Amino acid sequence: MVVMCLSVGTLMSLDMRVNQKRLRQDIQENATFGSIDADEGEGRTVLTGSKADRLVRERFIDRLDDAGLKVRVDAIGNIVGRWNPQECDCNASPVAVGSHLDSVPRGGIFDGPLGTYGALEAVRALKEEGYEPSRPIEVVCFTEEEGGRFNIGTLGSSVATGHRDVEEALALTDGEGVTLGERLEGIGFAGNSIVDARSWKAWLELHIEQGTRLREADAGVGIVDSITGITNCEVTVQGEADHAGSTSMCDRTDALAAGSAFVLALERAAREEAANSDAAVGTAGSGSIAPNVRNIIPAKVQYQLDIRDVTEAGMDRLVERCRSALNRLEQTRGVATMLDRYRHSPPTTMSERCTGAIANAATKCGVDAIELHSAAMHDTANVATVTDAGLLFAPSEKGVSHSPKEWTDWEECAAATAVLGDTLRSLTLE
Amino acid sequence: MVVMCLSVGTLMSLDMRVNQKRLRQDIQENATFGSIDADEGEGRTVLTGSKADRLVRERFIDRLDDAGLKVRVDAIGNIVGRWNPQECDCNASPVAVGSHLDSVPRGGIFDGPLGTYGALEAVRALKEEGYEPSRPIEVVCFTEEEGGRFNIGTLGSSVATGHRDVEEALALTDGEGVTLGERLEGIGFAGNSIVDARSWKAWLELHIEQGTRLREADAGVGIVDSITGITNCEVTVQGEADHAGSTSMCDRTDALAAGSAFVLALERAAREEAANSDAAVGTAGSGSIAPNVRNIIPAKVQYQLDIRDVTEAGMDRLVERCRSALNRLEQTRGVATMLDRYRHSPPTTMSERCTGAIANAATKCGVDAIELHSAAMHDTANVATVTDAGLLFAPSEKGVSHSPKEWTDWEECAAATAVLGDTLRSLTLE
Repeated sequence: MVVMCLSVGTLMSLDMRVNQKRLRQDIQENATFGSIDADEGEGRTVLTGSKADRLVRERFIDRLDDAGLKVRVDAIGNIVGRWNPQECDCNASPVAVGSHLDSVPRGGIFDGPLGTYGALEAVRALKEEGYEPSRPIEVVCFTEEEGGRFNIGTLGSSVATGHRDVEEALALTDGEGVTLGERLEGIGFAGNSIVDARSWKAWLELHIEQGTRLREADAGVGIVDSITGITNCEVTVQGEADHAGSTSMCDRTDALAAGSAFVLALERAAREEAANSDAAVGTAGSGSIAPNVRNIIPAKVQYQLDIRDVTEAGMDRLVERCRSALNRLEQTRGVATMLDRYRHSPPTTMSERCTGAIANAATKCGVDAIELHSAAMHDTANVATVTDAGLLFAPSEKGVSHSPKEWTDWEECAAATAVLGDTLRSLTLE
Repeated sequence: MVVMCLSVGTLMSLDMRVNQKRLRQDIQENATFGSIDADEGEGRTVLTGSKADRLVRERFIDRLDDAGLKVRVDAIGNIVGRWNPQECDCNASPVAVGSHLDSVPRGGIFDGPLGTYGALEAVRALKEEGYEPSRPIEVVCFTEEEGGRFNIGTLGSSVATGHRDVEEALALTDGEGVTLGERLEGIGFAGNSIVDARSWKAWLELHIEQGTRLREADAGVGIVDSITGITNCEVTVQGEADHAGSTSMCDRTDALAAGSAFVLALERAAREEAANSDAAVGTAGSGSIAPNVRNIIPAKVQYQLDIRDVTEAGMDRLVERCRSALNRLEQTRGVATMLDRYRHSPPTTMSERCTGAIANAATKCGVDAIELHSAAMHDTANVATVTDAGLLFAPSEKGVSHSPKEWTDWEECAAATAVLGDTLRSLTLE
């Protein structure tokens, strides 16, 4: 395996099969589509079905072609490049590897492309080394991972895993009232049939960390053991509008004061949960005040909560503590409250076969690895429900993502890609 | 004086010079202009310079004419009807009495009109009784008391008292970019010169309470001893935007959590101040969260505060406690904070000559009276800075104002008007 390995500090002295220059060129050229002006860093906006998305996809297919992969596009626009080596059993279930190429508005150049072009680079390196896998390998680009246009993340993989009906997905409308189906037809990426992730022997994804744990540990690759679950709640606190001058302090039912007590209770509960589980977080990220007039006591506040943990029990506990806090506020402040748990994605555990293979690959490649959880959602969370799945993180400067400031050094990209390639090799040996 | 008096319970048995039916008809006909549909009660929208405002003003002038008063309109649209009795010294400084006729959007029918038509009714009653005042009486309607169109309340009185330059006031623009000067010209109410409140011997205003203290005390009239001061502050709490999933609870600088702690600190401080002064109130009525996205830790929150008390010292203490709370949050939570005290109206004390005259009048009229402060702003606060001023409250159903649900019984309107008239008499005896 040593042929695929590299050490960040001594890159050029090793027999490198992962071609850092080629990978860098792929990511940089990909970044020219949907490129935006940014004060700092390099950013892009690639929304599903846009012209930028068409150009990004066309170039990706060209590069799959160049590598000798057989390309197909499915009904939801997922792209697959298949490597059918001469010696292997073409009917064997393939191992798939990839990520996405869409971005959030004004996003960065690594979130998605590192995993998609990293997958292609890993396959190119394996081919160039003369490796003959025992089963096909598929390089995959999923549609609308970010939910940047149709407001639902990991959409392409939810269809490929059978979690969402393709017709329902194609009928989703964007902010301009145009359906996903129309958008895909508009750019010539509405294909036939559906990629079936259930047919995959295993799945791998490489992604930037979107956190700082790798940098803090001085590690080159993160082996994700689980992907956080996410629960979204809407909390409503109903008080009574009144004149801010003539209503004395003891005659008020101030919804903002009660809501503020709730925000602090959520923070306190999440901090206490975090003492047991690093992954436990609870955030009131957005909210509103009504009527929101300076000299009227607030009648109603609403907050939208984002609660995450790697266990269902942890998430349930945090939601329960929110309910208790609201009940207390009803009693102590006379407000009416409501908690609507309107969305829930369960936590996902990665397959030990995959995490073990990644750990071995990292060791062979001389890349320091740590285990960690993913605090963000990825297509891998969908795929992990239907087959063995593994997720690798590359270090991310200051943990920044979804921003032009997003950055991973090219050596770090190549090192993580080498680990990805070596893992791919071990999963296709038999 | 008994001729002007009435007792709510025995209205019809007394020799009534305040004509309740006529007063009621005035207020009800006035309410037909700018009338709105309301589920409950009777509402109106009369914004300065609107067609409804023109009709309201034209009818008021007709009624001043009918009562034999000499009408003038000043440059800012303030309307004055002057009674120059034959026997009196026309050069003596007049006693003025009145209120306003504009409303907030979807306001009620008593806030303003009770004081304006009540003033007229008091003068009519005095005339009908054959009373000959020793000095002129002026019935006044001030422009844009509510700030409903040009966003600055008690505007007409601020010009009449010299607190604001007339040219500056006329140049104010509304939400459509039209100036007050243009609006007044548009309805034919841009007059000449300026009513000079400094020339008044005294000033009286009757207004609905906008609170429940009269009803709680079962009193028919409130004698205002002081009008609250109002301080407005904008508080900014700056934290750090971060991914709500991948930023652990101990690595956050959550502006909303810090802001929520501030809202509670404001509430606590105002409650403590209120233990010493009923009038002390502190409200965060409006605010915003940025970027206000569910899965991003809030980077910045802002609140607009409304702080009131009847002493400068009380208001200063409350602002100081807000500053202290923010300083503590800077230290404990690492946020940056700012408090901008951008507007301040000082508290105003009513003249003892006026409050004494009102108290005597209430006694003579057999109307139970209590002393209280005004928690809302009124034109009287401006006038009180240049001459002796008195403010009377009539009871207000459930304290509701600025709403179609605003209500004062007609008997209560007449009783308070009788006290107003008798006060006017005692202030014009010499």
